[in-house]
Amino acid sequence: MAANGPVDDHSGRVLAGPTNPMVTPLLTDLYQFSMAYAYWKAGKHNERAVFDLYFRKNPFGGEYTVFAGLEECIRFIANFKLKKDEISFIRESLPGSSEDGFYDYLRRLDCSDVEVYAIPEGTVVFPKVPLLRVEGPIAVVQLLETPLLNLINYASLVATNAARHRFVAGKSKMLLEFGLRRAQGPDGGIGASKYCYMGGFDATSNVAAGKLFGIPLRGTHSHAFVSSFMSPDEIIEKTLRSSDGSSSCEDFVSLVQTWLNKIQRANSSHGSFGETNQSELAAFTSYALAFPNNFLALVDTYDVIRSGVPNFCAVALALYDMGYKAVGIRLDSGDLAYLSSEARKFFCMMEREFGVLDFGKMSITASNDLNEETLDALNKQGHEVDAFGIGTYLVTCYAQAALGCVFKLVEINNQPRIKLSEDVTKVSIPCKKRCYRLYGRGGYPLVDIMTGENEPSPKVEEQILCRHPFNESKRAYVVPQRVEELMKCYWPGSADKAREELPPLKDIRERCIRQLEQMRPDHMRRLNPTPYKVSVSGKLYDFIHFLWLNEAPVGVLQ
Amino acid sequence: MAANGPVDDHSGRVLAGPTNPMVTPLLTDLYQFSMAYAYWKAGKHNERAVFDLYFRKNPFGGEYTVFAGLEECIRFIANFKLKKDEISFIRESLPGSSEDGFYDYLRRLDCSDVEVYAIPEGTVVFPKVPLLRVEGPIAVVQLLETPLLNLINYASLVATNAARHRFVAGKSKMLLEFGLRRAQGPDGGIGASKYCYMGGFDATSNVAAGKLFGIPLRGTHSHAFVSSFMSPDEIIEKTLRSSDGSSSCEDFVSLVQTWLNKIQRANSSHGSFGETNQSELAAFTSYALAFPNNFLALVDTYDVIRSGVPNFCAVALALYDMGYKAVGIRLDSGDLAYLSSEARKFFCMMEREFGVLDFGKMSITASNDLNEETLDALNKQGHEVDAFGIGTYLVTCYAQAALGCVFKLVEINNQPRIKLSEDVTKVSIPCKKRCYRLYGRGGYPLVDIMTGENEPSPKVEEQILCRHPFNESKRAYVVPQRVEELMKCYWPGSADKAREELPPLKDIRERCIRQLEQMRPDHMRRLNPTPYKVSVSGKLYDFIHFLWLNEAPVGVLQ
Repeated sequence: MAANGPVDDHSGRVLAGPTNPMVTPLLTDLYQFSMAYAYWKAGKHNERAVFDLYFRKNPFGGEYTVFAGLEECIRFIANFKLKKDEISFIRESLPGSSEDGFYDYLRRLDCSDVEVYAIPEGTVVFPKVPLLRVEGPIAVVQLLETPLLNLINYASLVATNAARHRFVAGKSKMLLEFGLRRAQGPDGGIGASKYCYMGGFDATSNVAAGKLFGIPLRGTHSHAFVSSFMSPDEIIEKTLRSSDGSSSCEDFVSLVQTWLNKIQRANSSHGSFGETNQSELAAFTSYALAFPNNFLALVDTYDVIRSGVPNFCAVALALYDMGYKAVGIRLDSGDLAYLSSEARKFFCMMEREFGVLDFGKMSITASNDLNEETLDALNKQGHEVDAFGIGTYLVTCYAQAALGCVFKLVEINNQPRIKLSEDVTKVSIPCKKRCYRLYGRGGYPLVDIMTGENEPSPKVEEQILCRHPFNESKRAYVVPQRVEELMKCYWPGSADKAREELPPLKDIRERCIRQLEQMRPDHMRRLNPTPYKVSVSGKLYDFIHFLWLNEAPVGVLQ
Repeated sequence: MAANGPVDDHSGRVLAGPTNPMVTPLLTDLYQFSMAYAYWKAGKHNERAVFDLYFRKNPFGGEYTVFAGLEECIRFIANFKLKKDEISFIRESLPGSSEDGFYDYLRRLDCSDVEVYAIPEGTVVFPKVPLLRVEGPIAVVQLLETPLLNLINYASLVATNAARHRFVAGKSKMLLEFGLRRAQGPDGGIGASKYCYMGGFDATSNVAAGKLFGIPLRGTHSHAFVSSFMSPDEIIEKTLRSSDGSSSCEDFVSLVQTWLNKIQRANSSHGSFGETNQSELAAFTSYALAFPNNFLALVDTYDVIRSGVPNFCAVALALYDMGYKAVGIRLDSGDLAYLSSEARKFFCMMEREFGVLDFGKMSITASNDLNEETLDALNKQGHEVDAFGIGTYLVTCYAQAALGCVFKLVEINNQPRIKLSEDVTKVSIPCKKRCYRLYGRGGYPLVDIMTGENEPSPKVEEQILCRHPFNESKRAYVVPQRVEELMKCYWPGSADKAREELPPLKDIRERCIRQLEQMRPDHMRRLNPTPYKVSVSGKLYDFIHFLWLNEAPVGVLQ
């Protein structure tokens, strides 16, 4: 636990602001400032309000969500302060003539009197359970609504998407996030890299994200690199020193050509591939000369089987002669199941023909518009891909481009509040609450339960009644084997409490992977997953329905 | 035309960097640096390359796209320079041991030798036609690929989405972008606000975007504001000065109550609404006291017809007594067609009953998960909405979350290059090109045509053959009434050319609206729109197919 106040957990310095310097108190909806003014004008601005931030439905047709974005929220809150020019802009923007006193008030505003409880980042979470509970003077907390939602909605959505891709791909595959060019803006890209890593990806192509967050970087070369070469004749510097430095090959280009001829002959008994593309051969040779220890070639610029793979093998075998081990190939188009299997066969044939140990195990990376469905289809067809590079569908969350977190007032001045709606799923659960996850005998989480703040907490081995918040017939007795309180204090405000540390990204990622693994498999499957149960205590249930009846207008039929 | 070099068009100062300071040369894929190193190692880094940036398919099932993001690209290019710590990070990130000379080279790198031609921002554009043509030393241009794609893909996608929403809503409606909380990250939100405005929206709720880009701001209040009040008794400061300052109402709360009673009586002949919600009445009264000139109330917290609208009218009529004109209501749930019509009837009834001029014309704003389809459905059902607040579906481009712009090498050292693919739509069009839009007699654009760089340009009243680039049977003679060269020089690099100015956002928006209006209606309709024709000259057609045959490997059947 760290000391109170905006102190960085790792360095002891002041907590840094959000990663993106554009995340300022102005990154909010105008109506938050309009309401702040109206609260101030009514003398209500310091009334103590409690808001819950939660979502109503899991994304992607699934039954779970990964909670992400908390660290950015806390860094935002820790540094919340309006600048002079920002205040002038608000004054210009508010309609009508507003009073000066309000701007004096804005000038003094910060989050020192705001208290934030939250579920740890990287936790698997479910609808209706608050991810954040923000308590403080209503005008301030209202101003936080939009930025907190912005920082959590996409982060949680894309982390969940990454987790789902990992689930389909399986643990043994390498998953690479390649989405920067198609992301929704610059930090659509940077955020995607961060939160995909959190959700279980292994690396990113995004250099800025690598630098900011320490995420491993991966990449090969593009089609343009291949087509920028015309023929091997243009390679001038042809020397390659051997891996151990003991010798030198004066003409690596000829060595590659020799190998290509050998491959052609060896292959003629299996079926010939004709002439390979010379600009491709030149590009591969040149790339290998630049990165002899890390030769990974994109083999589909012209024709994977007739050109790309044989050209790759010629360069890889020439490298082998010089003591280097090639990394593998990348496929970026066509039938990835078929092409990866054919490539694998070719590698195995090379291993047999030329006695090169492990040549058959050459790594195959596949990219090209992959998503959950195509990964699933590849698994069903059978494939030989070792690593997947996933871009567009992952980072833009193409299957569902938004998560609908909301921020609802649940209590003001100790008075519980409810938001009604003709749509029952949109009715909010009132009261300042505590939330627990109850675990069963199998070690799996069984149910989340929300209680009023002052109710006794559920106890291990003690039976407790869990009720569906809105459906009176749905209830169950649970005897938990373990009880975990979900929300912790991440920003104590003026309260004399310890603040939870913000763990490094790697730790959050590990937590997330563990969390996903401990779920009962039927909640996680892609088709018809079982909903995880979210409940309220009997006492809270009764209170919700008392308040509901109290607030709903009675109609007059005539 | 502005002078050469990184000079701001409006102020004469250096062109500012991109809006988001996180857009740096590191916001790129690792493989761009790997390739830069391989080019450098092969002594190829200064070879002159030409890349085209284009997309292959219009988004949202439509037949047009709005080009956006250019200014950010030019500002990025103008300021392209690697910092010391960035270079150190690249050194750590490149695989294997790379040579020092490369990092000296990176240190000196900028875009002074890069030339960028582009279609003006806000232009309506079509598949395959280059939006940008970037020419320069191959290693540098390669590094630009990812950031340029990132800056253009989402910008163009969301501007197009905004234009499509405008098309369905019609010119007379007010369109408000309310998407910040659901956007894909902070500048998913800021970018959305900018490019939705460009695409024809009228205003945004995003205060930061208002400040950055001068976009008009709009907003009301939220449900939380309503439920934060308990009853009118809690309003302490009840005085309201009249609009002209001539008098004062000591108890505005009572005045509102008086009006509510009158409305109840007047309404009883049409059907009664029972008791209205008191916390809502308190919230509306309080909001009106804060913004008497701009009273716009969210009326669906409890029940629109039985509580929200009568409460609103009571406050609006009380304001009217004091010389103020209320703005209107916002609906955020339920059947918007029905509720807006019922609300309109109620307002008209108020106008008749109490003789309040124009009360029936009270503005009705609708929000709640609107998109193209729901706007279209509302139009078909009939509704009384004057303004639409659109969020999630607009800013996350929910119907299609990514635009697939690509960046392809079309020429190196004056040698045209082609990228083949088994999928014909993925074959690139080689050569450094010029692009023209040909207009017909109706004033409509008829066809875009690409030619080789040195071909004579199409001439007004002179017949020219336009060929489909890949389908030999599709060709047409065109006699243009007007010829518009599409690409202009936005970054001359070291060339002695004038640079196109970067116009202010308002001008781009106006250009965009004019561009959309001049299209033939059948290209624009939502259902089965006619594809706009994109063609190449006969000469370019022949050359594409010569190169294609030349590069494609000849198979061996056996």
